[in-house]
Amino acid sequence: MANGTTKISTLDPVNSDDATWILTASFVIFTMQTGFGLLESGAVTKKNEVNIMMKNAVDIILGGLTYWMYGYGLQYGTGPWTNSFCGVGSFFLDAEPEDMGIAFATFIFHLSFATTATTIVSGAMAERTSFNAYCVFSLFNTVTYCIPAGWLWGSHGFLKKMGAIDFAGSAGVHLLGGVSALTSAIMLKPRLRRYDNGLDPLPMGNPINAIVGAFTLWAAVTTINASLAGGFVGLISTYVKNRKFLVGDIINSILGALVGVT
Amino acid sequence: MANGTTKISTLDPVNSDDATWILTASFVIFTMQTGFGLLESGAVTKKNEVNIMMKNAVDIILGGLTYWMYGYGLQYGTGPWTNSFCGVGSFFLDAEPEDMGIAFATFIFHLSFATTATTIVSGAMAERTSFNAYCVFSLFNTVTYCIPAGWLWGSHGFLKKMGAIDFAGSAGVHLLGGVSALTSAIMLKPRLRRYDNGLDPLPMGNPINAIVGAFTLWAAVTTINASLAGGFVGLISTYVKNRKFLVGDIINSILGALVGVT
Amino acid sequence: MANGTTKISTLDPVNSDDATWILTASFVIFTMQTGFGLLESGAVTKKNEVNIMMKNAVDIILGGLTYWMYGYGLQYGTGPWTNSFCGVGSFFLDAEPEDMGIAFATFIFHLSFATTATTIVSGAMAERTSFNAYCVFSLFNTVTYCIPAGWLWGSHGFLKKMGAIDFAGSAGVHLLGGVSALTSAIMLKPRLRRYDNGLDPLPMGNPINAIVGAFTLWAAVTTINASLAGGFVGLISTYVKNRKFLVGDIINSILGALVGVT
Repeated sequence: MANGTTKISTLDPVNSDDATWILTASFVIFTMQTGFGLLESGAVTKKNEVNIMMKNAVDIILGGLTYWMYGYGLQYGTGPWTNSFCGVGSFFLDAEPEDMGIAFATFIFHLSFATTATTIVSGAMAERTSFNAYCVFSLFNTVTYCIPAGWLWGSHGFLKKMGAIDFAGSAGVHLLGGVSALTSAIMLKPRLRRYDNGLDPLPMGNPINAIVGAFTLWAAVTTINASLAGGFVGLISTYVKNRKFLVGDIINSILGALVGVT
Repeated sequence: MANGTTKISTLDPVNSDDATWILTASFVIFTMQTGFGLLESGAVTKKNEVNIMMKNAVDIILGGLTYWMYGYGLQYGTGPWTNSFCGVGSFFLDAEPEDMGIAFATFIFHLSFATTATTIVSGAMAERTSFNAYCVFSLFNTVTYCIPAGWLWGSHGFLKKMGAIDFAGSAGVHLLGGVSALTSAIMLKPRLRRYDNGLDPLPMGNPINAIVGAFTLWAAVTTINASLAGGFVGLISTYVKNRKFLVGDIINSILGALVGVT
Repeated sequence: MANGTTKISTLDPVNSDDATWILTASFVIFTMQTGFGLLESGAVTKKNEVNIMMKNAVDIILGGLTYWMYGYGLQYGTGPWTNSFCGVGSFFLDAEPEDMGIAFATFIFHLSFATTATTIVSGAMAERTSFNAYCVFSLFNTVTYCIPAGWLWGSHGFLKKMGAIDFAGSAGVHLLGGVSALTSAIMLKPRLRRYDNGLDPLPMGNPINAIVGAFTLWAAVTTINASLAGGFVGLISTYVKNRKFLVGDIINSILGALVGVT
């Protein structure tokens, strides 16, 4: 699609050093999918381990495919019908050979954000959705993500025009993902038999994998100071509350702080 | 070996930005070894898990050592006896201090390709070769890879002279690895008791590891669009054929597409 | 803290290309924590798997927090009381906005070295320290590391002034970590029941994780030739000694060579 090129060039100009950095960053962001998969599959019961891992694969397959088909266009399209609510254009993204490297580096970077936003929700739905239903969700969450993300980052977006700046995805990825996650958690209700034995959290099926997942996510973000403070608070508070160190509490404090700092 | 330096400089010139990128890319390609190891060891039966993981370690140890000893020389050597069939020179590669960074960045990049080509074959031999025999294979596969790879990428290569371009290893790594893999699979025949219970694939020993391995490989390549389409076709076809989603089928469609796009 | 900025600028000047490379390298070094965690938790008995993984998390949380609080200042501080034994200044590191990117890239790079030095010791203490005691150790090891590391790398350091060069952490990380590790191993004595069945090493609880950990560490260093030779010697010697290939021996030869080459 020839007009893909001109669309891309309306983004901030990107040189080849930037493209290299964007590709490296995209690799790093993509490893977050491994991290999320291990963390979530380690935290659920053994019998759902494979199920949740495959959900994270579907996030990329279907979330990525739809991002290419219409997500990028809704978020960054600059065709004639573009308005301050959503972009129109650059559907089924393509680029001329001379711009290809930069266009695709930009595309893959934003794609990795979009699939991450979907992955956030999968944790909140863990063990309570069928795989088929999740596939359908995955197809549509691209719309739920891309339109508000365009408000923030697209040149057409009304939040951008009002001067909003979100350079790490605080609102665009985490607030949005968090609200979707909360909505789905409320709709799905607690898992069956969750409170049969009181309020205590269920034991993790595979704590080693959960910790490896947390490490992987941790490595992928260099905003380290927040996580140190978060982890420290987690260490202290889990010990004060329970007289012992709970793996889940500590992991969650580290990751909560990482999200907070974006 | 002083003449190592001059050999290197016959390659395309590489500046320090390129060297940085090559080193980053080599790190990424090296993580593919972790990915292959997890994928293969997760896909075989539990009792062969450690065996196949160690095979992948041997690919790097012996494959890498022989690449340094004679592989690089056969592929890129430009000594007096070089001909259009194979390079001669730069054996036991060394470089003068002033060229060291660039020479070794180039070397490690090509080494990671060479060991990947060997690793492809290890999957096809899984559970049917003794560890000792595999070590011997690993020593010699460097020759099997480096000579044809030199045809494509060495300045002496007859395919290069005919204008062949293969910038992602389509022929040099995947076609070559695939043919070696097929040859070994035919020579080794199916594993014992493979078809005792009909044609259905044997269950994976550790599907979580297999999926983590697939994610790692996926992250390492940024040619993402093909994998999305491949994964999508896999999702649909495994469901249509089996009325359920088979982990192995989906993984294989994603990876097949990634190979296809090189 | 305003004077943080001026401190940073006494380091070698760093441009934005360097900052990109330093951040990439820091990501890579951080993945070593995942590698160490998997290697150590895979090598101990099953019941201590989670314990040792959490120790590695504490290395980053407490080691990182104290590095920010006083470690960096002891190592690189250039305040008025700085002497050839230790730096003073830049405590609770901060930077002016105009220098932020470079200052924090430098900081996170050195932080990853400091936490790695602590992690080296955790392996030597495996299965013989309580989690609480380890947390206290982790807080203080920052001092044990940062003062001697300042001798080598700080502009005030007496070893630096004498012309010592250690560009990969040979003395600063590995010699120091090794001596701390040896000291703690001697203080803690062998684990209970270690020699009940003779001198043979205890079986690994999870060899797959140990190997994945070794791969991760391997990928993180590009000084590959040494590891090939090390692995080769390991392969041969474990076979000659035991008439079989021992996973632990081979892993240790690879990693030993990687340490040796720094």
